[in-house]
Amino acid sequence: LFLCSSLLSKIYWRVEASTGQCFVAANFVNALSTDKAEKLIAEAAGYGSQLVLFPEVFVGGYPHGSTFGLTIGSRSAKGKEDFWKYHAAAIDVPGPEVSRLAALAGKYNVFLVIGVVERAGYTLYNTVLSFDSLGKYLGKHRKLMPTALERVFWGCGDGSTIPVYDTPLGKIGAVICWENRMPLIRTAMYAKGVEIYCAPTADALPSWQSSMTHIALEGGCFVLTANQFCRRKDFPPPPEYTFGGHEEEPSPETAVCPGGSAIISPSGTVLAGPNYEGEALLTADLDLGEIVRAKFDFDVVGHYARPEVLSLTVKTEPKHAVSFTSTVG
Amino acid sequence: LFLCSSLLSKIYWRVEASTGQCFVAANFVNALSTDKAEKLIAEAAGYGSQLVLFPEVFVGGYPHGSTFGLTIGSRSAKGKEDFWKYHAAAIDVPGPEVSRLAALAGKYNVFLVIGVVERAGYTLYNTVLSFDSLGKYLGKHRKLMPTALERVFWGCGDGSTIPVYDTPLGKIGAVICWENRMPLIRTAMYAKGVEIYCAPTADALPSWQSSMTHIALEGGCFVLTANQFCRRKDFPPPPEYTFGGHEEEPSPETAVCPGGSAIISPSGTVLAGPNYEGEALLTADLDLGEIVRAKFDFDVVGHYARPEVLSLTVKTEPKHAVSFTSTVG
Amino acid sequence: LFLCSSLLSKIYWRVEASTGQCFVAANFVNALSTDKAEKLIAEAAGYGSQLVLFPEVFVGGYPHGSTFGLTIGSRSAKGKEDFWKYHAAAIDVPGPEVSRLAALAGKYNVFLVIGVVERAGYTLYNTVLSFDSLGKYLGKHRKLMPTALERVFWGCGDGSTIPVYDTPLGKIGAVICWENRMPLIRTAMYAKGVEIYCAPTADALPSWQSSMTHIALEGGCFVLTANQFCRRKDFPPPPEYTFGGHEEEPSPETAVCPGGSAIISPSGTVLAGPNYEGEALLTADLDLGEIVRAKFDFDVVGHYARPEVLSLTVKTEPKHAVSFTSTVG
Amino acid sequence: LFLCSSLLSKIYWRVEASTGQCFVAANFVNALSTDKAEKLIAEAAGYGSQLVLFPEVFVGGYPHGSTFGLTIGSRSAKGKEDFWKYHAAAIDVPGPEVSRLAALAGKYNVFLVIGVVERAGYTLYNTVLSFDSLGKYLGKHRKLMPTALERVFWGCGDGSTIPVYDTPLGKIGAVICWENRMPLIRTAMYAKGVEIYCAPTADALPSWQSSMTHIALEGGCFVLTANQFCRRKDFPPPPEYTFGGHEEEPSPETAVCPGGSAIISPSGTVLAGPNYEGEALLTADLDLGEIVRAKFDFDVVGHYARPEVLSLTVKTEPKHAVSFTSTVG
Amino acid sequence: LFLCSSLLSKIYWRVEASTGQCFVAANFVNALSTDKAEKLIAEAAGYGSQLVLFPEVFVGGYPHGSTFGLTIGSRSAKGKEDFWKYHAAAIDVPGPEVSRLAALAGKYNVFLVIGVVERAGYTLYNTVLSFDSLGKYLGKHRKLMPTALERVFWGCGDGSTIPVYDTPLGKIGAVICWENRMPLIRTAMYAKGVEIYCAPTADALPSWQSSMTHIALEGGCFVLTANQFCRRKDFPPPPEYTFGGHEEEPSPETAVCPGGSAIISPSGTVLAGPNYEGEALLTADLDLGEIVRAKFDFDVVGHYARPEVLSLTVKTEPKHAVSFTSTVG
Amino acid sequence: LFLCSSLLSKIYWRVEASTGQCFVAANFVNALSTDKAEKLIAEAAGYGSQLVLFPEVFVGGYPHGSTFGLTIGSRSAKGKEDFWKYHAAAIDVPGPEVSRLAALAGKYNVFLVIGVVERAGYTLYNTVLSFDSLGKYLGKHRKLMPTALERVFWGCGDGSTIPVYDTPLGKIGAVICWENRMPLIRTAMYAKGVEIYCAPTADALPSWQSSMTHIALEGGCFVLTANQFCRRKDFPPPPEYTFGGHEEEPSPETAVCPGGSAIISPSGTVLAGPNYEGEALLTADLDLGEIVRAKFDFDVVGHYARPEVLSLTVKTEPKHAVSFTSTVG
Repeated sequence: LFLCSSLLSKIYWRVEASTGQCFVAANFVNALSTDKAEKLIAEAAGYGSQLVLFPEVFVGGYPHGSTFGLTIGSRSAKGKEDFWKYHAAAIDVPGPEVSRLAALAGKYNVFLVIGVVERAGYTLYNTVLSFDSLGKYLGKHRKLMPTALERVFWGCGDGSTIPVYDTPLGKIGAVICWENRMPLIRTAMYAKGVEIYCAPTADALPSWQSSMTHIALEGGCFVLTANQFCRRKDFPPPPEYTFGGHEEEPSPETAVCPGGSAIISPSGTVLAGPNYEGEALLTADLDLGEIVRAKFDFDVVGHYARPEVLSLTVKTEPKHAVSFTSTVG
Repeated sequence: LFLCSSLLSKIYWRVEASTGQCFVAANFVNALSTDKAEKLIAEAAGYGSQLVLFPEVFVGGYPHGSTFGLTIGSRSAKGKEDFWKYHAAAIDVPGPEVSRLAALAGKYNVFLVIGVVERAGYTLYNTVLSFDSLGKYLGKHRKLMPTALERVFWGCGDGSTIPVYDTPLGKIGAVICWENRMPLIRTAMYAKGVEIYCAPTADALPSWQSSMTHIALEGGCFVLTANQFCRRKDFPPPPEYTFGGHEEEPSPETAVCPGGSAIISPSGTVLAGPNYEGEALLTADLDLGEIVRAKFDFDVVGHYARPEVLSLTVKTEPKHAVSFTSTVG
Repeated sequence: LFLCSSLLSKIYWRVEASTGQCFVAANFVNALSTDKAEKLIAEAAGYGSQLVLFPEVFVGGYPHGSTFGLTIGSRSAKGKEDFWKYHAAAIDVPGPEVSRLAALAGKYNVFLVIGVVERAGYTLYNTVLSFDSLGKYLGKHRKLMPTALERVFWGCGDGSTIPVYDTPLGKIGAVICWENRMPLIRTAMYAKGVEIYCAPTADALPSWQSSMTHIALEGGCFVLTANQFCRRKDFPPPPEYTFGGHEEEPSPETAVCPGGSAIISPSGTVLAGPNYEGEALLTADLDLGEIVRAKFDFDVVGHYARPEVLSLTVKTEPKHAVSFTSTVG
Repeated sequence: LFLCSSLLSKIYWRVEASTGQCFVAANFVNALSTDKAEKLIAEAAGYGSQLVLFPEVFVGGYPHGSTFGLTIGSRSAKGKEDFWKYHAAAIDVPGPEVSRLAALAGKYNVFLVIGVVERAGYTLYNTVLSFDSLGKYLGKHRKLMPTALERVFWGCGDGSTIPVYDTPLGKIGAVICWENRMPLIRTAMYAKGVEIYCAPTADALPSWQSSMTHIALEGGCFVLTANQFCRRKDFPPPPEYTFGGHEEEPSPETAVCPGGSAIISPSGTVLAGPNYEGEALLTADLDLGEIVRAKFDFDVVGHYARPEVLSLTVKTEPKHAVSFTSTVG
Repeated sequence: LFLCSSLLSKIYWRVEASTGQCFVAANFVNALSTDKAEKLIAEAAGYGSQLVLFPEVFVGGYPHGSTFGLTIGSRSAKGKEDFWKYHAAAIDVPGPEVSRLAALAGKYNVFLVIGVVERAGYTLYNTVLSFDSLGKYLGKHRKLMPTALERVFWGCGDGSTIPVYDTPLGKIGAVICWENRMPLIRTAMYAKGVEIYCAPTADALPSWQSSMTHIALEGGCFVLTANQFCRRKDFPPPPEYTFGGHEEEPSPETAVCPGGSAIISPSGTVLAGPNYEGEALLTADLDLGEIVRAKFDFDVVGHYARPEVLSLTVKTEPKHAVSFTSTVG
Repeated sequence: LFLCSSLLSKIYWRVEASTGQCFVAANFVNALSTDKAEKLIAEAAGYGSQLVLFPEVFVGGYPHGSTFGLTIGSRSAKGKEDFWKYHAAAIDVPGPEVSRLAALAGKYNVFLVIGVVERAGYTLYNTVLSFDSLGKYLGKHRKLMPTALERVFWGCGDGSTIPVYDTPLGKIGAVICWENRMPLIRTAMYAKGVEIYCAPTADALPSWQSSMTHIALEGGCFVLTANQFCRRKDFPPPPEYTFGGHEEEPSPETAVCPGGSAIISPSGTVLAGPNYEGEALLTADLDLGEIVRAKFDFDVVGHYARPEVLSLTVKTEPKHAVSFTSTVG
């Protein structure tokens, strides 16, 4: 749909719905993930997309089915070795992989939002990087709170990396996986004016779609969610990797994370997806005028807020265990 | 499912899903609404329900299709007359209607959560009242922010009436209609430990179901939503009452607010409803152990919160335009 | 050694070195754990002990070998059921189990420091409770940061529960398991003047003894460490429970957490233990004058500190996601 | 073990475990100490070592058994003369001895970490100098707080000389003797990312080994500790020099500081030493991948820190009694 | 001399010039020192004194001739035992000895300035306490930097305890022993307006008198210096206690600290003393008008200062290695 | 004493203790003063002196007994004429007299420190010039603050002329007359490392000796003080010149400034003087090793400073009433 109002922007993009990325050794070679990223970005750009969103930790990978050798109260040498590999596969920010991703964004003239495993010393973070269409790295968001077993291999982000970027396409931000269940970080994003709310995830349950719709309504914004698509065969066999939610060992072709990527408008209309079939690119045209129409009814941090009763404080300073200061005083 | 553990409660109840209550003159007589309430409570209790939830402003009514004679910049004498009637139909809290509702709760041995139009001087509030099964009035919640045209006939609540009651059935609270879209009031409810989250509403859109599912997941609580069911014929004919969202005047039988009441578990499973067919009572057994299982994964104000980054302050004092004080100074 | 100076206290105590407590259903009944506690307290008191220390989460239990059904990215219904039981077995603070423990301390006239699993709503904490010999509950410490898989079933403590109690026996405090590896919480304890440093734990590695000796030297305090003693047979069989650190399934009699309780003086002398043989009570007389002699050489927060270069800030306020305040402002 | 990953470094080195350096006049001639240093460096390099660590104040010497003529409230002329000699034997930084040490590091192609007595005007400091394998002087660390009698002949360092050097071998830093008991300076080192933690010392007690093991675990780093080896005969006879810790005058061959140098891995494994036998060179291969494996479990300034509760501030500016400034103001 | 001007005050006092206090066990009993203090205060008050000054560490004692068993690099058990006794003999501030001293000041109606050994946890301080003539404890000064061997048994004060008290007798402050050599703390005292500058000390050299005269001129204030008087026989025999400054063991009657107390006017006139003969009380009338006359010529922090060129900053906050704060922020 | 160590310097010099220079017209001719200077320098050099110090304003003269015709609120023409002469007798720096003094230092191979009256436009300064033994002018120090009546004919120096020169003889600096009472400028000199502290003065009181001794102790440096020696007859008769401190007009032979030059070691030992008898040259050998021995006990800006509590800032930029700058802004 072509819209000519000066208030509206025509935005095409492709959401990378699934990746097949997995936790096998080959995939740890970051060059491969970024190679795959290039192939998908090129394809999306070929359709005229202006923004391309990838799932959570597309670079670095999500170790579905592993336990890093942990049971409660014990560890295995094998698990430590797995972590050593996983740490090695993570990327420094900035670093060579970031530079390559920036170059891809510039080469294909797209805004790029992509999940990575970030290495900061010896602690890893679940991070989303953003790039503009000129190939400039915009910044990063670190997931505030890992979920379940993730807490043993990812650290917690803080208030210094909850960015929303004001771009020619609109205000873009990202919230990762179950962070999207945290009402306070969503409210922080709304307060920063997010218009294109990216939700890279690893959750493929049907209820995820309810949350995405709710967020579109609550925030009066477009919601883009990109999930992974991967099959049992993409991971090492049991007992090294197991899938606890299944009573029996799944067949090799079973999708252990079956996607579900989707694009939803501020009024809660599903524009594309959810796609649970396989690797796919989803695309939609966004009419930013929808945001105005939605916020006429409900502006969560504007006319519909009650700041004299309910006020959220976001501490934006970085949290460091140790601060070095040369200030005399 | 019968559960005998001391940690689990067997709770049966019937949710009043629709009412047919409407804005005709007769309906302004509160005694009629409470008469209808008694009939429904009795029926629910007959099924063994321990908690009965009614929709938003069941007592007092929701004036679907009216404008109270307002266009921008003008008013009509007829609209003022309508408001005079609507004001008269509202109830004082406490007051005789409150006493009668309390008596009903005690008589039928149920917890009762019911929407009313509250009159406080010359300002009206969209209020929910709660009663225990011994017939004791527990308190009230006033909707914090009315929606759209509601702002011309309802005032705003404040932080002094956001209660959660710790009862033998679990911790019970209510959030009204689009308040449910406000992430901060929900977070306040979660912080108070709500386990049985009541959402009386007037929103019958399909997207409402997404929000209800999301809230169950976000809050790790049971969500009970009760909406009105009313038809075009329940309201005065045009042009006095009109239904702007329809291109043509709806037929008399058209449901202008078609219900959609539902009961959802903390894991996002829909236990009953949504029912869009007509007036109905919905019922479900609740296993509070589901809350533990859900919060193991996600405890929004517990292990999954990041209070050092994101902290909400709720001002709980009443907001008065004028305060009288004998303190010199 | 009997010392009569008014500056020195004769202190006998028994460290509860192992418990056999485990994660089987029967053990979830808190009464059983507290029954066992009473037996041990009585025995220790019979030897004239004035302070009795129990291991980490003695009440509630440490689920060695479980995973709560988690692998990365998936959950099992069985795991949720396990968590439901574990949550049920935890105790409220205050609550009936706390009252019983207080009564035991008073009955046997001992100071009591004991690990419990604390339930606060739907989040659990790894907590240590302290009681004086008159039967008064003194307060609690919540472990600041759970280790590895613990992060999926325990929340994080904050700066409001890092107590040191000034008692007739000396200043008593507790730091739990790998918290003892955190140099900043230890420094906070030293700044509060801890003299009898209790380290309930689940770590039975030989390197744990090095840390305990180091802390005694660093803090110039007595260190008492109590670990669990439990065998493979105390837990459910594989595959439900597995012990990742062992290449093969251990035999039923294998100690999966083989104790290592010990008592160390401020000069680094091991006064009792480490005992890896089985359940046992360890005892030692403490001469508090040793602290003076040790701090003559090294007073970590006194003459040997350099506060103008290195200063630690401890935020002692509770961290709440939501604060309710009635302050007008 | 040979490891070829780009993330791992093969590092051989020899720790200079003992020196026989002492406080006799001849040894005050710095050329002799640096001559001895060259001999040891050459030997270590001959074994393929890439990093060579020397004990505390190898150049300048540690005056074991002296009192500089002090008793409380009095001084002797002889003690002042001793101090005059000791001051003369100290070295300026930079200065000719520093240049010679730099040249040695370059000649033998090793990283060099070596303790010296530094002269800054009329105050002396216990300092460690570091050099890279190209013969470049990297910088110095001054001991923050001298121990016991050291306080009468050494000044206190400040926050401007707590360096960690990022080298091709890993991040290298040094903490001197009982500074290693100071939890806050250790935490500062961890925050700077130290991977090869050098602990030159004069403490030969068995408890020193516990501290070294603890630091390796706490910091997730390799710990190299080099102590002096010197005998009674290396010092002047009594009553000029006395050894208070011995009831009788020790025999000439008695080791008054019997070494104890050691190398410990991040998991607490002792890779070499402790050697208490005599002068010796210790050596070990370091696999830096061990750091990743250790920090997976415990990253003291990363995922296992709680900066919102416990935060350390390090003031890095030099502390001067007098500042000269030409800033107009 | 009797002076009647309203600007001048007649002040009599007695300086306690010597004490015989020593380091034998009996003297460690603080009651004895305060008994002796009472006898001397009573005698001074009998002469009409309004202010009584005692020497450095009159309560607690100065361990002349000891080494606490230290030689460089070694310690003795005997020395630790000595420190244990010395720590026991020190006093808490506030505490029972402080209360008794306050009562004495009130009973005899004198201002009292007296040196004590203060115990703060396990670190000791060289402290001066001040009391007014109504028996009120005014505050304390901790010596900023101990001298020589003192650094092994006393900690350093900070900028929070450099008080000057504005009393009816004039502005009173105290600077201890070689602190009087520190030009910056003296300048801080001058800036606080000190008029009666008390210098309790343990220095009996003739050059001490030069410094006292200089300070009177520099500061334009009265200087009162009180030193100890003690003989060799007051201390244990060699080798336990030795006096390094003497070639031979002194005879029992030799004064190892021979006093030298004196009172000096702002113009440098010696009003009383120095007395090196034995225990004695010195007394003088002070004409505060002398201060005005002296400052006409030289006002060190007034007309004779050059603050635009030379400015001193005094950091007055307490220095704590650890700060506990409940401030949300 | 002959000392051959490279750390020790043999330094002979003669201090010009008195000069007979006076305020008669003839003495205003600078050539005469420098003639007299040459005679004295030659004599001192003949004894082997390496450094020669002259009193305050040796060149230009100190107008003892004059008032420049001022009473408060009035001036006399005669006084203005006197100032015209005094201004004419002052010297420009640089200028011909400076060149001649430099030549003298070179000719006699001595370091020369000499007081002059400096003319800078129409303001005069009390200045000390320094020269090395090669005949090079090193720089000047202007007295920071004139005393009493001096303030009517001398201006104030600033922080740009507080030099200490690092020479083969040691670090040399000068502080003039009552500047020596200013603790902060002394501290600045100590911070610059002054070892040979020159104190040219016009103060002949006995208390001056106390200050000189104190400074030697405080600064751990040699103090050389040179004062004038002049008699009543050297100045015009009354009433033009009067000497207010004497009740009667002194006899012609009375010394109105009777010298008192002296040389003092860092330990406070008086090496030469004070001489109050008449014009004289004083001489002493200096052993710089004394400085080390003294600073072992007390290093005022080193180990005995507390910069984190007390810190002095010295503004070293010149102070100009008007600054011309081409910086736009």
